[in-house]
Amino acid sequence: MDVSVIVIGDELLIGQVIDTNSGWIARHLNLLGWNVRTVRVIGDSSDKILNAVNDAFNETDIVLTTGGLGPTKDDITKMTLCQYFGGEMVLDKEVLKNVEDVIKKRHLSMNPLNEAQAIVPTSCRVIQNQVGTAPIMWFEKDGKVLVSMPGVPFEMETMMEREVIPQLLNRFCVDSYIEHRTFIVVGYAESALAIKLEQFENELPSYIHLAYLPVPGIVRLRLTGESKNKEAITQDMKTLSDKLHNILGSAIVSYDDKPLSEIIGEKLKERGLTLATAESCTGGNVAHQITAIAGSSAYFLGSVVSYTNEIKQELLNVSADVLKEYGAVSEPTVRQMAQGVCELLGADCAMATSGIAGPGGATATKPVGTVWLAAKCGDRLESQCKHFPGSRDRVIDRATTEVQIMLLKMLSE
Amino acid sequence: MDVSVIVIGDELLIGQVIDTNSGWIARHLNLLGWNVRTVRVIGDSSDKILNAVNDAFNETDIVLTTGGLGPTKDDITKMTLCQYFGGEMVLDKEVLKNVEDVIKKRHLSMNPLNEAQAIVPTSCRVIQNQVGTAPIMWFEKDGKVLVSMPGVPFEMETMMEREVIPQLLNRFCVDSYIEHRTFIVVGYAESALAIKLEQFENELPSYIHLAYLPVPGIVRLRLTGESKNKEAITQDMKTLSDKLHNILGSAIVSYDDKPLSEIIGEKLKERGLTLATAESCTGGNVAHQITAIAGSSAYFLGSVVSYTNEIKQELLNVSADVLKEYGAVSEPTVRQMAQGVCELLGADCAMATSGIAGPGGATATKPVGTVWLAAKCGDRLESQCKHFPGSRDRVIDRATTEVQIMLLKMLSE
Repeated sequence: MDVSVIVIGDELLIGQVIDTNSGWIARHLNLLGWNVRTVRVIGDSSDKILNAVNDAFNETDIVLTTGGLGPTKDDITKMTLCQYFGGEMVLDKEVLKNVEDVIKKRHLSMNPLNEAQAIVPTSCRVIQNQVGTAPIMWFEKDGKVLVSMPGVPFEMETMMEREVIPQLLNRFCVDSYIEHRTFIVVGYAESALAIKLEQFENELPSYIHLAYLPVPGIVRLRLTGESKNKEAITQDMKTLSDKLHNILGSAIVSYDDKPLSEIIGEKLKERGLTLATAESCTGGNVAHQITAIAGSSAYFLGSVVSYTNEIKQELLNVSADVLKEYGAVSEPTVRQMAQGVCELLGADCAMATSGIAGPGGATATKPVGTVWLAAKCGDRLESQCKHFPGSRDRVIDRATTEVQIMLLKMLSE
Repeated sequence: MDVSVIVIGDELLIGQVIDTNSGWIARHLNLLGWNVRTVRVIGDSSDKILNAVNDAFNETDIVLTTGGLGPTKDDITKMTLCQYFGGEMVLDKEVLKNVEDVIKKRHLSMNPLNEAQAIVPTSCRVIQNQVGTAPIMWFEKDGKVLVSMPGVPFEMETMMEREVIPQLLNRFCVDSYIEHRTFIVVGYAESALAIKLEQFENELPSYIHLAYLPVPGIVRLRLTGESKNKEAITQDMKTLSDKLHNILGSAIVSYDDKPLSEIIGEKLKERGLTLATAESCTGGNVAHQITAIAGSSAYFLGSVVSYTNEIKQELLNVSADVLKEYGAVSEPTVRQMAQGVCELLGADCAMATSGIAGPGGATATKPVGTVWLAAKCGDRLESQCKHFPGSRDRVIDRATTEVQIMLLKMLSE
C-alpha cells in the first residue's frame, strides 16, 4: 500500500521544531511492506491543509496527518477536516471522559481548553488517545482513509503502534512484500565503496536495489527487495549478504542497522568485558551514546568527564609533566586518560578523547577540530589524531563516532 | 518571498535518515523574513522529482532542493533537472577542478565516481561546493529559480550561508518584514499557560500571532509579527515582551530561543560559579548538553558518570549505609552524589541524577521511569522524585531536562 504523510505545524516551517514523525511513520510502515510516497510539511492554515489533503488523496488512498491538534488557538486542523469530510463539530462524551482520565493520571486538573479537545467532527470515528488529550480521528470517503494524529512524537508513536497500524492492516490488504538488509561499513568513503562494489551491484537481481547512506565515518549499505514472492526474496537476501561479507570482510561491523554503541555493547557482552570512558572534548557524549542502549549497565561502569587539567591529573592520573610538555590535546595525554580511567574504575576497556571542539581554544599548532582519540582493550592501547571540519557540534559528533569505531575494530579482531 | 523546499532521498521515506535540512533552511530563511510554504519529501525517482518541481513552482517562485546528488547509482536528481530545464549533460572543467581540490584536501584520491560529479546540465549555473564534491546548481526559467543543493547537512548549510542565501537576496527583493520573539517558559502545562495568557492573546494586534511550542517540561512561546513597517513591529514586540514578563515573571527562564544548558551557562558566568555533574541514569547526557555550548569550559569542570554502586561510593562518597538502606535510586543517594561531585571536583554547583531508565531494572516500589534528581548551588541543595513515562530515550531526555530546570530555577532566584 502507498501512503501519504502530511505534517502540520507553523513551528516546523520556521525550523523551530524538527519533524521526526514522518521518519518514524515511514520506518514503521516500511516494515509492513508499505511505502510512504510523499511527505508534505505545511503550516497551520486551513487552505494549506485542504490543498495538501486533496493532493495527497490524488496520489494515495491512505493519508496520515500529524500535528495541529493542540489545545491552543494556533491549531485549526480539526475544523478544517470537518469542513473537508462534512458533518459538524460536537462534544463527544467518550472523548471527554478519556481527556479527564489522562489529565487525572498526570495529576493535573481539567480546564476549558482541555475540554475543547473533546469537540470532534461527527464525520470521524474517534480512536481514544491513551497517552494524551488530543483524540485520533479516522475519516473515510470514497474508499479512502485519512487518520489525523497528534504531533507530540511520544503520543503519535504509541497510538500508531497500539491502534492505527493494526486498524490500517485490518482495513487494507498487503499486496507485496518488501525486505531490507542493512550493513554498517567503516573505513570506506562512499565513492571508494561504490567502486569496490561495482560488480556486485551490476549483478543484483532486477528487483533488488542497493543504496548508500553515508554519515561521517560510516557508510550504511541498504539492500531493498520488493516482490510478491517472500521466500525468493529472503533466499536472495541471504546469498547477497554472504557475498558482501566475502567482499568487505571485517569492514562490515554489523549486519543489522543499529548504532555503533549497541554493536560495541554486544561484543563486550560476548567477551565478558567492562567499559569506561574518559572524555574531554566529547564532554560525556560517548558515555551518553553507550548508556542509551538498554542493558548497558551489564558492561558499562562509568565515565570521567575531565574538562580541566586538574581533573585529568588528579582523577585520571595524567602526569603533570605530560600536560606541561605536550598539552591536554596530545597523544600522551589521551593515552594516559584511557589508562587512568581503566585503573580508576577497574574497567577492561576504555575510550578517551581530548581535542579542540571550538570555536575557541585553537593554538598555532592545534587548529579547531584537532582531536586525539584513544581506545584500550586489555593490554592493547591505540591512539590517533584526527582533524574534523565544521562546527563544535560536528567535531563532538565525529570524535564520538571515531573513537567508537576504534574500539569496535579492536573488539572485532 | 515564499519558498518551496523539496527534500530528495529514498532513505528519508523509509525513515532511515531524518531530514534536518528543511528545518535548517526554514529557520535561516525566516530570519530574512522569507516564508517556507511547503516542504515535500520524496524518493529518488524521476517522476516524483518532476511532479514535485511542477507543484512547487505552482506555489512559489523559488524552489530549493536538497539531496539526490551523491556519487552513487541511486541518485538521479541531476539527470531529471536536466530533463526539466533542458540542455544536455556535459563535463564541466571548473567543477572537475573543484572536485579534485576537495578530494585532495581530504587526503583521498580521485576515482571515476568522483569525476562523474563534474558532469552537469548545460542549463544550470554552477556554484562551486567549497566543502564537498556535489556541485550546487542554479536553474532559472520564466522568472522562477530552482537551486539544487547536496543533502549532506554540513555541505548544504555551509554553502547556503556562504553563497545561496546571498545570491537569492541579490536576485529577489524582500517585500515584508517578519520578527519573532521566543520565550522559554517552565512550570506550566500548555493548556494552563494558554488560560493564563487568554487576555494577553485576545489583545494582540492583528498582525502579531502567538504560538505554543511545548516540549516535555518546557513551553516555548513564540510571537510572530509580519508587516511592512519594521519600526512599528519592533516597538510592539518590546511592549508585548514586557507584558509577558509582568504576567509570567520568573517562569520565563529566557527571552531568547536557546537551550537550557546555554541559559544555565550564562547565569553561571554572570555569577562566577563553576559546575559539575554526577550522573547515573542520564549516563553523561547532562554533561553532554552542558558542553555542547561553546565556551562552557569557562564554568564546567567535569562529570562523574557512576553506573555502579562502587563508583558512587568510592568517587562520589555516597555512604554504603545509604545505598544499602535506600538503594541507588533514592533521595539520600542523589543528594550525596551532588554533594560528592562538588567536593571531588571543587565545583560550586552540581546536578545529579539517579533513576531507572528501563526497560529493565524496575522493582516493586520503583517502576521504570522513577528518577531522583538533585541540584546544588552553594549551600542550597534541592532534590525531587519524578516519574517519567515512555521509553528509555524519553526517560533519559526528560531527566536531563528536568534537572537543568531545577538548577536554572535556583540560579534565577
